[in-house]
Formats: sequence, structure tokens, C-alpha cells
Amino acid sequence: MINTPPKISFSVQREQEYTLLEIALANPIEPNDIHHMQNLPDLVNENRASLGVILSGRGPIWLYGYLIHHYHPCMWVAVFDPKLNGAVVVQSHSEKYNAADVIPI
Amino acid sequence: MINTPPKISFSVQREQEYTLLEIALANPIEPNDIHHMQNLPDLVNENRASLGVILSGRGPIWLYGYLIHHYHPCMWVAVFDPKLNGAVVVQSHSEKYNAADVIPI
Repeated sequence: MINTPPKISFSVQREQEYTLLEIALANPIEPNDIHHMQNLPDLVNENRASLGVILSGRGPIWLYGYLIHHYHPCMWVAVFDPKLNGAVVVQSHSEKYNAADVIPI
Repeated sequence: MINTPPKISFSVQREQEYTLLEIALANPIEPNDIHHMQNLPDLVNENRASLGVILSGRGPIWLYGYLIHHYHPCMWVAVFDPKLNGAVVVQSHSEKYNAADVIPI
């Protein structure tokens, strides 16, 4: 039996106001690969749920959907859009940001 | 002052087990257009939150992210992927479906 590396992994950048997750995929991926992700940080356990999360990188919408829900406990979640040179807030428990705000990064 | 039509609208199909939302965009859209969407159904008010929601159509990931969070009160939310001929569940309060399940439609 061959050990295959996880097809979905992340590089994580811990900033003062947010955690940036860059998605790295070994294509093609399928939905079941969600159950074998590597380096998905546990931000609640790291005491970083009081900060935001920015998701970045190529990936199917359903993977983003899963991650957005997964990080719902965090202060806010935003999706980086290279066309906007920033991350669009999609959910927020913070008074600082509302959904649809663009955070330049 | 000219009345411009909303740039984000939806066609809605009410099925027995889920509500299918087909996104229709007048490109280009920007995050602020989230505040002026047309025909976004209020599924809680329609007593359809006990069913699932399937999102479909072309659209930026941040729009999907906003909608996925918006329909968090619903039983489950899935994203249609034409490559899979089905919708991938991204969040579920139901025992019938788990995240990463593919619902053929």
C-alpha cells in the first residue's frame, strides 16, 4: 500500500489581525479529499478565533464553501480576489468589518 | 438619475428536498453589489429552512461565500459543480448528508 500525500494542503501566515491561508492543491481533487487535508490550522485551539481569516488560492468553490463554514467561529472570514488586490469579507462578527468590505492586502 | 437593474439576481427553483438558486450576473460585479441583490429568497420566512439549499451558476468565490453564510440557518448548503454532475455539501445540520457528500442533480 502506497502512502499518497494529501491533495489539499495549506501554507499559513499568522499576521497580527488575521490568519492567511493559502490553498495548495495536487490536482485533480475530489470532494472526499476534504477529509484528508494537511496543515489546516485549528485557530480556535490556537486562540486565534478572535482574529480574521483570509482564504486565498486556486480551488473549487465547494472547497472554499467548506472552509468558510469551518472558520465560522472566527471573527471574520474573507476571500482574496486578485482582481481586487484585496480580500472580500463574506462573514463577520466584528464591528470593524461588514460583509462586502474589501481588505487591501 | 437612471435606475440601473441589480447586477446580481437569482432564479429560484423550489424542490421537495431543497431550493435551487441559480445565480445570474450582469458583469462586471463588485463586492458592493451584494447589498443590492434581486430575488434572493428569504427561506426562513418561507418556512423552507428545514430543507437544503443548492447554489449554482458562475460567480466570484466571495459571492458564493456570502451566500453560503447567508443560508447557514438552512438544513444544508451545497454548491453545484458541473464537473461532478452534482452538488457538493459544504455545511449540514442534517443526519442525511455530511460535508463533502455529492448530491446528484
